[in-house]
This record gives sequence, C-alpha cells and structure tokens, in this order.
Amino acid sequence: MTILGIDPGSRRIGFGLIRKERGLIEMLDAGILKIKSKDDLGAIVEVKNQLVKLIVKYRPDFMAIEKLFFSKNRKTALSVAQSRGAIVLTAAEKGLAIKEFSPNEVKAGLTGYGLADKKAVAKMVKLILKKPDLKILDDATDALAIAILASYRNLS
Amino acid sequence: MTILGIDPGSRRIGFGLIRKERGLIEMLDAGILKIKSKDDLGAIVEVKNQLVKLIVKYRPDFMAIEKLFFSKNRKTALSVAQSRGAIVLTAAEKGLAIKEFSPNEVKAGLTGYGLADKKAVAKMVKLILKKPDLKILDDATDALAIAILASYRNLS
Repeated sequence: MTILGIDPGSRRIGFGLIRKERGLIEMLDAGILKIKSKDDLGAIVEVKNQLVKLIVKYRPDFMAIEKLFFSKNRKTALSVAQSRGAIVLTAAEKGLAIKEFSPNEVKAGLTGYGLADKKAVAKMVKLILKKPDLKILDDATDALAIAILASYRNLS
Repeated sequence: MTILGIDPGSRRIGFGLIRKERGLIEMLDAGILKIKSKDDLGAIVEVKNQLVKLIVKYRPDFMAIEKLFFSKNRKTALSVAQSRGAIVLTAAEKGLAIKEFSPNEVKAGLTGYGLADKKAVAKMVKLILKKPDLKILDDATDALAIAILASYRNLS
C-alpha cells in the first residue's frame, strides 16, 4: 500500500511517499513541489500539474493531508486553503482516497505528545523510516509524518 | 461573448451568466449552486461537478470571480478559499480565461462608489440588465454584478 503525505502550501508543497507492506514502512520519496507561478491563478494550475506527475509516477493508494487550520498569517492561510482545494480536487479526480489529520493528531500519533515540536517529530520520522541521516526540509518531513500516521490509522 | 460571474462559497456558490453583443448586455441565467455534501472533501468534488455542468451548458468565454478576501469569520473564509481553489482549477481546465475583482471594485464599477451597500448594487444590476422585477438571491446578484463589471473592463 502506497501513501502520499502532503503538507499543503501555495508555493511550496511538502510531499512524502511511503510504502507499507506487512507492517514494514519504507520511504519512496520526499521533497517539495515548488510552484513558480507568481499569480495565484497560474499557481493553482501548476499545483495540479505537479501533483499529477507525482501521482502518475508513484500511483499511491491514498493521500493524507493536513486539515484546514487557522494560521496567524491570515493572507497566507487563505492562499494555502485555496491551493489545498486544488490539491484535494486533483487527488479525488485521480481516484485517491483522502484522509485528513490535524497537526496535533500527527504530532501525537508519532511522538505521543500533541504539542511536540518539529524537531521531535522529525526525529521520530527518521527513526520510523530507519533513515537516521535523512536530510530533508521541514515541509517534506511534515508530509512524511502525516503519511506515517495515515499508515498507522487506516491500513491493515 | 458570454461571461460567467461567480460569488464563491463552500456550500452556496452564486452564479450569473450574461452575454454581451455590440455593447448590449443580456442575462442568460443566475442562481445558486447548492452543495449538498456535508464533508469538505465531498463538497470540493461536488463544486467541480456542478460548475462543469454550468460551463458545458452555456460555454462561457471567461469567468469573473471575487478575489480572495478576509472575512470576519475565519473558519468560513478558509472553507471558501478552499472551494475557490476548486472553482478556479475547474474553470482553467475547461479553458476559461479568469478575471478577478475585489468586492470594492465591483461596487465602484457598478455604482460609482466602492462602499455601496448590497441594495445599491442590486438596483444597478437590475437596471443594467433591464430586469426591474428580477427576484434572485444576494449571492446570485453578486455574481451577476461581477460578470457585468468584467464585461465593462475586459471586453471590447
């Protein structure tokens, strides 16, 4: 079973792909989809195109994505929410089931503590994936974390 | 030239379709797309499906839609922004050009006053469309208003 984890953004979208077979989790890929378009409308189409490429390449069974949440930065929050709409629609059209988790659920699921900091989550991601030297950006780590949580919660 | 005006929402999307030929504006249709799905993910797919039906029926040349803006209700604002992402992506995929206007631009463009109230805008919409007895809901009126403004600004 292959899971695509997504950390939504308007210009930087973290992604993490894992495969779970017989209880073993393996990392397939992780990184950032960088959206180059400066205007929001062009960005939305680019989000879709880049996401489709990823889905076609790895054929995940489902996508796990952060729930809509309230950021301190209201302008950013709206752009992220808009981008998230394009992400969810694209995944649904590609036939992926979609699971949503709040940031706190992800933290609690991986570290046992809902208010864990990014460092603690990243440490658990590396431990679970057996990649102690994994060097990836925060957004990609968050995407892997949500994919891992989804693999705990929703897959046999 | 046919223009689709959209007043974005997560469960109620106002739409207004107008045709402009030789400077004359005619209303083709107006109303509300009602999204029945209770969960946000299902709603996004429904937004797309209903919008596609409208586009296929009227084959508009472009879509005019309100810019992302900051509502007092933050939870609603995020859901609307997410839905807007699905709307914009759908329109782009159907080959429509997209124009964005702020609520104040619409008010100023129709009434001459950027802080005009809804009633004044509705009055102008009825006047411009030569439909003094038009009985439609606010969201549909707003959608017609933005379509009319787009016809002033972007079409010869």
